[in-house]
Amino acid sequence: MIIGEVIGNLWATRKAEELNGLKFLVVRALNHKGEKTDRIIVAADSVGAGMGDQVLIVNGSSARVQLGDKRIPVDATIVGIVDSLDLEQE
Amino acid sequence: MIIGEVIGNLWATRKAEELNGLKFLVVRALNHKGEKTDRIIVAADSVGAGMGDQVLIVNGSSARVQLGDKRIPVDATIVGIVDSLDLEQE
Amino acid sequence: MIIGEVIGNLWATRKAEELNGLKFLVVRALNHKGEKTDRIIVAADSVGAGMGDQVLIVNGSSARVQLGDKRIPVDATIVGIVDSLDLEQE
Amino acid sequence: MIIGEVIGNLWATRKAEELNGLKFLVVRALNHKGEKTDRIIVAADSVGAGMGDQVLIVNGSSARVQLGDKRIPVDATIVGIVDSLDLEQE
Amino acid sequence: MIIGEVIGNLWATRKAEELNGLKFLVVRALNHKGEKTDRIIVAADSVGAGMGDQVLIVNGSSARVQLGDKRIPVDATIVGIVDSLDLEQE
Repeated sequence: MIIGEVIGNLWATRKAEELNGLKFLVVRALNHKGEKTDRIIVAADSVGAGMGDQVLIVNGSSARVQLGDKRIPVDATIVGIVDSLDLEQE
Repeated sequence: MIIGEVIGNLWATRKAEELNGLKFLVVRALNHKGEKTDRIIVAADSVGAGMGDQVLIVNGSSARVQLGDKRIPVDATIVGIVDSLDLEQE
Repeated sequence: MIIGEVIGNLWATRKAEELNGLKFLVVRALNHKGEKTDRIIVAADSVGAGMGDQVLIVNGSSARVQLGDKRIPVDATIVGIVDSLDLEQE
Repeated sequence: MIIGEVIGNLWATRKAEELNGLKFLVVRALNHKGEKTDRIIVAADSVGAGMGDQVLIVNGSSARVQLGDKRIPVDATIVGIVDSLDLEQE
Repeated sequence: MIIGEVIGNLWATRKAEELNGLKFLVVRALNHKGEKTDRIIVAADSVGAGMGDQVLIVNGSSARVQLGDKRIPVDATIVGIVDSLDLEQE
């Protein structure tokens, strides 16, 4: 999985029907120091995450599994809001 | 998912039969500032996107799900045209 | 999908049986300017591509779908030969 | 698969129900010299790994296979603790 | 697929049961000039490869297909030993 910080929101009126009702958040992936990288992922939210939250993202077919419907065309879903991240200091 | 900007079109006469009728767009992925990166993805269009549109792309087996036929050999599909993108300013 | 240019061939006598009869081409991925990058992908050819052709590659389980047999251990297949690539000039 | 070193732990109270009971470790991927890179992966532990262990991570749908339940939204699982890593010296 | 050179071996006593009996090789991916990059992949061997061999690796669910058992938690398998690699010279 990827850990990242929510840095934005995205709205799309013209979209696949199956995506209706889903909230899409823009997440910046973290590196080994817990710092934000340049890499972003757009993920469907399934746990009520918001701006500034550190979140856990699952990718691939697992992302559809979490939304409970294999026909939803999503490949990244937020499955957890991180309470604490304990990283070895260099 | 990936968010990117449509920067081009691609035509291929000699191709897998199952791809007939699909429109292929070349999309440049965006980074955390909403700027275009060097990374490109060729995606099948499913929502009527065009040059300059910011779009949402789904990858992997989910891309086939959106086109409604698991035999279509596609691994990236445009599933939304972005109305607005609200990113945290650094 | 990935767009790239065929830059080589690869032969392997000792290989998985299911791969017998397949032609493997070495493809260099293109960037947003249509230039060749350092990234290469080895892909099974399904449309008669050759050296110097610009091709469209599908990855993942979709690659097996195109070869018509889910037991073939392939994760990248060439599904189109590009006639024309129209990219926005910077 | 990826080989990496466990450098941290992550806790998330608000998460997908199916993730309850799983331990999540933060792993830094190694490069060709066995050195830690900047790339991190969060993986579910299935073999009792801990801080400082070198571990083998499986990604994608295989990660769910190891946890024995296809509904668990996980895309990376630790499937081995490395006893010894023998790399060609440059 | 990925083409790379075998640069090492890896042993893990504490591992998922389904991995017992499999040989794991550390492979360095090649770039467009046939040179070794910094990227490594750990792959299960299915064709008798050894140190210094140039090999063809399949990723994702296709990797499990080659080992003949969908329950084996593997996402990269060596499916060929390269006899010859013919790359366009720059």
